Amino acid sequence: MQPIDRIALVTDFGAGGPYLGQMKLRLSGLLPRVLVIDLISDLAPFRADLAAYLLPALVRDMPARTLYLCVVDPGVGGERSALAIEADGGWYVGPDNGLLALVARRANQIRVLRIDWRPAVLSASFHGRDLFAPVAAALCGGKIPYYTELDRGLLIGNDWPNALAKVIYADSYGNLITGLQAADLDRNTWLWAGGRDITYARTFCAVPPGQAFWYENAFGLVELAVNQGGARRVLGLGPGDRVELSPH
Amino acid sequence: MQPIDRIALVTDFGAGGPYLGQMKLRLSGLLPRVLVIDLISDLAPFRADLAAYLLPALVRDMPARTLYLCVVDPGVGGERSALAIEADGGWYVGPDNGLLALVARRANQIRVLRIDWRPAVLSASFHGRDLFAPVAAALCGGKIPYYTELDRGLLIGNDWPNALAKVIYADSYGNLITGLQAADLDRNTWLWAGGRDITYARTFCAVPPGQAFWYENAFGLVELAVNQGGARRVLGLGPGDRVELSPH
Amino acid sequence: MQPIDRIALVTDFGAGGPYLGQMKLRLSGLLPRVLVIDLISDLAPFRADLAAYLLPALVRDMPARTLYLCVVDPGVGGERSALAIEADGGWYVGPDNGLLALVARRANQIRVLRIDWRPAVLSASFHGRDLFAPVAAALCGGKIPYYTELDRGLLIGNDWPNALAKVIYADSYGNLITGLQAADLDRNTWLWAGGRDITYARTFCAVPPGQAFWYENAFGLVELAVNQGGARRVLGLGPGDRVELSPH
Repeated sequence: MQPIDRIALVTDFGAGGPYLGQMKLRLSGLLPRVLVIDLISDLAPFRADLAAYLLPALVRDMPARTLYLCVVDPGVGGERSALAIEADGGWYVGPDNGLLALVARRANQIRVLRIDWRPAVLSASFHGRDLFAPVAAALCGGKIPYYTELDRGLLIGNDWPNALAKVIYADSYGNLITGLQAADLDRNTWLWAGGRDITYARTFCAVPPGQAFWYENAFGLVELAVNQGGARRVLGLGPGDRVELSPH
Repeated sequence: MQPIDRIALVTDFGAGGPYLGQMKLRLSGLLPRVLVIDLISDLAPFRADLAAYLLPALVRDMPARTLYLCVVDPGVGGERSALAIEADGGWYVGPDNGLLALVARRANQIRVLRIDWRPAVLSASFHGRDLFAPVAAALCGGKIPYYTELDRGLLIGNDWPNALAKVIYADSYGNLITGLQAADLDRNTWLWAGGRDITYARTFCAVPPGQAFWYENAFGLVELAVNQGGARRVLGLGPGDRVELSPH
Repeated sequence: MQPIDRIALVTDFGAGGPYLGQMKLRLSGLLPRVLVIDLISDLAPFRADLAAYLLPALVRDMPARTLYLCVVDPGVGGERSALAIEADGGWYVGPDNGLLALVARRANQIRVLRIDWRPAVLSASFHGRDLFAPVAAALCGGKIPYYTELDRGLLIGNDWPNALAKVIYADSYGNLITGLQAADLDRNTWLWAGGRDITYARTFCAVPPGQAFWYENAFGLVELAVNQGGARRVLGLGPGDRVELSPH
């Protein structure tokens, strides 16, 4: 396995809260020399099904030799496996609940490990700190905790679609990111969302203030936006809401 | 005194704001090589009385040789002492307003120092940056600023109860953390909060969606939660609100 | 040019979101050894005109040899230049939209560079990651990307006033920071904001709970506050709203 230079945290924990803080503090004790970066911490709570489509877009063009420690875990305390996936030069650690499904599917080179190791002390509700963080630390140290190799076809989410015509994330400006890859959509495509037709524009300043449009965002996804406004409020949509390809 | 490997910030400053940023930037100038981690930055504003009960739970099981720089400081600008406490292998720096009272009470080994040193330039409203950060930096460098050793019985909060039957923190999911230690409560105990009886469950997936329950959270505290919902909204409670042990 | 020890991020990206995360992750790939600190990430969205007055106050008394990577960029995708400014021992990188205007005006020693270099891959909407971050990385490495030296009189915002009688930032406690420098205001000055007269007090505990007052905040600016309350709610004001010097 190749060396890991840094850990990027991908969570729905919320910025500023104690979960992100304890993960980082725990990691600093295990890995004093490894940089830990919050890549995103305000994913839609519990929506592993939505985050799954954001994750491959977020990591596109990011530095190699990064371990993505991903925790959106609605089923914590119940049965679900822990995964460590080596895919195209990066590592992904997280629950087997679909969160890593699209990363796994799109990888050219992949190795999927179900982590069977469990720590001596494991809380019922915070596997990010107690299970996934030490797994990440072990991988950074070049060791893989006790595991079983799996075929990626066995992962939860293996039967999910390649693209998701839903809002998967609303950013702090009120822009609405969808699970549609912009490269798949003709620029003449109209979308239907929030009760109106939405046409393509290259970027914000290409439309009048207050007008909704869709564009290819900086992650390669279709994003609904309003110039000098918030699509979330204007369209009345949020994470999980549907977007339709318009019949026009 | 033992070496300090990292600083963890415990504040009500809010994530993303300039207060946390200036503390970190100031510390980076004083201590270029010491890691500084946001442990929590969204404590209930000004509620040192509530944060006091969260702090010992938050630091439980965290790495030794950590200095906790704690600032919840409603009385800034007025009279209150500055403290540096060495307790069970960690350091705590903050105001003497009760914030460190429970950490001090529960420590097995403790040394309480009232810091009498003051910086040449001290703003009226930002002692976190101007007073507590340089004190923390001095301690990391192995030096204790001018001080008076105190008995912990003299600290503000010395007469506070051992547990607090109130919501002390609401997390970003809407879970309500109380100041009750879960080890002290029989699992048959019913709680009364937000106009309803609340029974124990091991964790989220042990109750039906929408049902409120209490459980031992990952910090060892009693937490009110709702499976796939937010206890804050469902129960209509927030930080400072009372929880009762039910007469059942 | 003098060495740079750290990068401080000044943005309206929001804490916890993917923009701050991708900037930091990209920077960690370019500069594995340079510390990157979030100085502020919740500036009023798109309001470069307001942030311009907060920036010089925020960097006052902060460590030298810091590069401030500043992104509030409402016109992204349109025409505006990229700047790198060396001013009084610090560097500032950001768009030429006024954001750096007051820093530039108040500098004693200054060198203004318009950065003409462009990366091979430049998204339409995320110049913070694709343009400004690599410029900052180059400067940290002692290299200046292809540039034209400018007179500061040519910067956008060169004709803006020296002080701004508006709320420029609302903090998480609800305090309202204005663009007025406290050193310029006599303590007898009354302000008129939110339909009431507001008098000076040294700090919070100098007025009764619930009373609005103005004071010199820890950045040297005039701030409207309410003891044990939120000026934002009490006065009904937010970023961009006017404050008047009272006729009393």
